[in-house]
Amino acid sequence: MADKEKKQLHVNLFEMNCVSHIIHGLWVHPDNNRHRFNDIEFWTELAQLLEYGTFDGIFLADVVGAYDQYRGGPETALREALQIPNNDPFFIIPAMAQVAKNLGFGATSSTTYEPPFSFARRLSTLDHITKGRVGWNIVTSYLPNQAANYGLDAEMPHDERYRIANEYLDVLYKLWEGSWEEDAVIQDLEHRVYTDPSKVHYINHSGPHFRVKGPHLSQPSRQRTPVLFQATGSNAGKEFAGRHAEVVFTGGGSPEAVRANVADMRARAARYGRNPQNIKFLAGAGIIVGKDADEVSAKFDNYKRYISAEARLAHSQSRIDYTAFPETVTIGELKKREVSGYEFIPPRYRDEQTVGEILAELRSVNYGRFFVAGTPDIVADRIEEWLDVDDIDGINLVQYLTPGTARDFIELVVPELRRRGRFRETYNPGETLRERLLGAGNARLLSEHYGAQFRDPANFGKATEPLAIPEQNNDAGLELSHHEFRERAAADSAAE
Amino acid sequence: MADKEKKQLHVNLFEMNCVSHIIHGLWVHPDNNRHRFNDIEFWTELAQLLEYGTFDGIFLADVVGAYDQYRGGPETALREALQIPNNDPFFIIPAMAQVAKNLGFGATSSTTYEPPFSFARRLSTLDHITKGRVGWNIVTSYLPNQAANYGLDAEMPHDERYRIANEYLDVLYKLWEGSWEEDAVIQDLEHRVYTDPSKVHYINHSGPHFRVKGPHLSQPSRQRTPVLFQATGSNAGKEFAGRHAEVVFTGGGSPEAVRANVADMRARAARYGRNPQNIKFLAGAGIIVGKDADEVSAKFDNYKRYISAEARLAHSQSRIDYTAFPETVTIGELKKREVSGYEFIPPRYRDEQTVGEILAELRSVNYGRFFVAGTPDIVADRIEEWLDVDDIDGINLVQYLTPGTARDFIELVVPELRRRGRFRETYNPGETLRERLLGAGNARLLSEHYGAQFRDPANFGKATEPLAIPEQNNDAGLELSHHEFRERAAADSAAE
Repeated sequence: MADKEKKQLHVNLFEMNCVSHIIHGLWVHPDNNRHRFNDIEFWTELAQLLEYGTFDGIFLADVVGAYDQYRGGPETALREALQIPNNDPFFIIPAMAQVAKNLGFGATSSTTYEPPFSFARRLSTLDHITKGRVGWNIVTSYLPNQAANYGLDAEMPHDERYRIANEYLDVLYKLWEGSWEEDAVIQDLEHRVYTDPSKVHYINHSGPHFRVKGPHLSQPSRQRTPVLFQATGSNAGKEFAGRHAEVVFTGGGSPEAVRANVADMRARAARYGRNPQNIKFLAGAGIIVGKDADEVSAKFDNYKRYISAEARLAHSQSRIDYTAFPETVTIGELKKREVSGYEFIPPRYRDEQTVGEILAELRSVNYGRFFVAGTPDIVADRIEEWLDVDDIDGINLVQYLTPGTARDFIELVVPELRRRGRFRETYNPGETLRERLLGAGNARLLSEHYGAQFRDPANFGKATEPLAIPEQNNDAGLELSHHEFRERAAADSAAE
Repeated sequence: MADKEKKQLHVNLFEMNCVSHIIHGLWVHPDNNRHRFNDIEFWTELAQLLEYGTFDGIFLADVVGAYDQYRGGPETALREALQIPNNDPFFIIPAMAQVAKNLGFGATSSTTYEPPFSFARRLSTLDHITKGRVGWNIVTSYLPNQAANYGLDAEMPHDERYRIANEYLDVLYKLWEGSWEEDAVIQDLEHRVYTDPSKVHYINHSGPHFRVKGPHLSQPSRQRTPVLFQATGSNAGKEFAGRHAEVVFTGGGSPEAVRANVADMRARAARYGRNPQNIKFLAGAGIIVGKDADEVSAKFDNYKRYISAEARLAHSQSRIDYTAFPETVTIGELKKREVSGYEFIPPRYRDEQTVGEILAELRSVNYGRFFVAGTPDIVADRIEEWLDVDDIDGINLVQYLTPGTARDFIELVVPELRRRGRFRETYNPGETLRERLLGAGNARLLSEHYGAQFRDPANFGKATEPLAIPEQNNDAGLELSHHEFRERAAADSAAE
């Protein structure tokens, strides 16, 4: 296959503005730098490193609440620095964009809790500041504590959150795509006309969840609508992604499962009138690379020593503290004794499994299908498989150490991928984030995309098209397999 | 008087993330740079200039809506670039903070429209990023269009907005001051404890307007609570300022009026148990300075040629387009003819005044009491008067040209003020914004301040203390004098 026909790898660094994001326990590692996350220099140094490695971007997860279900409170999360303390993900972007002129930035914000009008302006502002390098990870939020931080007694039902999100997106498209026509800003000094008023429109959105008059306050930015990211596993979420998402953060336990998942989502995109290849898939990937086998296994063993099973349990919002039982006790016995929270034991924890086995899994550094530990050629082989067999488009690189994991990838994996024609040698100057994904000239939402209809103010009055999800269904409960829960934890963290 | 006894001038640049903030019409001036406001380099260059001039900070006004009452729509605002387009004020701060390591930053956000929990984290994040150089201009918002952008049919009544704001501040103090104890973060690598969980607290706030559980997500930043700015003229606003504000943006038509206003507010602060000298007063000041009288009058005449009376009318949300009448028509005739909107004519427009006289005032560059055009010694004399006679503490420098106005001030006024012992020669390294105002060692809210009580979680359950304002009073209608309306336009823009 000629190089130009080979699928190119997209790589983001998977991050969060906190100490312990997703690989828990390693913040105490002497080579880790996470405790510096409050210092902006932590982020600007990281951005410079990533730009040196021609990463696509940095992808910032977020939660606006604490993990406080495990052991009935936030104590474990606080001790382990599990996503608390955390800071707003958006504010570090303008500083990073100052020192890295090509890197892209994706960050997470919730459609359930942030008023759409101010949010629209925030993202337009960031798109101006970064000159078109910003993406938004759309989440509906799932933490009970987050709901309580916004005045709610409990989380809203899962599918209802997606219905709200679906209308929220309509509001945003109207503001971003249609409120200001392309040639509204004329800056006519002679006639003292900055904006032609006939080309700026109120949106007058009025729906079941939102009423927003407009006009949008920011003039059009390079991308207008930021690149739309989403992570999901549920039916409602996949329908939402088929319509809205340009990049989906996905997973799966086997190549077959991943392919099926990707194919399902591409089919949904096609049903929404999109070219199925225009929706891109990224997997959260754990990569441990070394110059030789000894270095690889030394790193592997070293990282493993730090992994915190308790933080993983807290992250999963487990209602059972498995560390409180002897390792020989079986899941079946826990159920028989009806220990507190036993009804939330994931169904794929088999009755004959022991607590020791569960804990061993929780202490593993293995990241399922998208994990590889090896020398550069082994890692590159695996990445090529992910691209060609699993049919994904790239990875969100999960960090064991900051900045060690990214540095290892840049020093050892990037050169090998370049040799194989799988990764860019340099950035094209001036690229927006969307063009990096969809090709030069595609700075804006593709015309096939659902949101593009709102370029025409005549469509502002249309009622929001419901998602094709059953009214009463709510399929995102806690009935998840252990594998699923591991992946969900990963996806949710990305998502949140 | 020895230098150290002389009151030192505080100087912020008065800004907004838009083209035409408050002196309207000059965006077309060939030496003006406002049309570059979408480019982050506009802001980073400005920040470097201000830091070179040892300014205290840059103060960013904001509105989250359009001025769309004049002529029944936003057309004039759009043509004149009157605060639309605009971008979020907070996002330019991290970029400016990267290139200016001492400059302070104040920005505006509304207590009426932004959920307090996310807002608290945003400001903590900015305080971390800037290493303690951030302030918040508290506003309750007043534009009808802003209300419509957040789902409301009309603005909430003025005093009700202050009641909401008063509870909003309680929520924030609990999150910023009390949720995390000073020594909660221990970063104990050996025992793997990042945070001591016994020192982090839910706030469990439950009041008439907000229910917020907490805990706060950010660990304590250098200032915890950002420096609290406010602009106000109403009784409710002044009561609010007496309790909460650390810096008040003020005005007045004469030294006596300013002194009285300042004294009134200091007295209110005293009633809330504060040292009245610990509330600082800034006035929006227009300064036109030149090396000699010829240069001064050339600048004065030059700026005056560009002033837009229409934009001023649109900014004031005038219901009458005075430019549509012959200049000889009197206010009395407009009232007699009951022209549309006549009932909103400010009462101090006297019946015998002509439209021509009104328009001449609107076209003036004069800024009332806090305006001076002169050579550096004249300007410095006037500034010393403002400090010593009017009893204010500093200015928000209003810009005619960007960056020309700031450059003139730095080149011509700053050396003269330094010679007179009125302005710092250099920054003290490491100062937070609050220390710059209240002296070294005062990075945190003073212990006398109302908010300090929430350092003790035992006070989290206290009901919000109502402001001493009448239940039914709503004294911020449109019954303002012309002078008052000019000042209100200035204050409101600062406020918003």
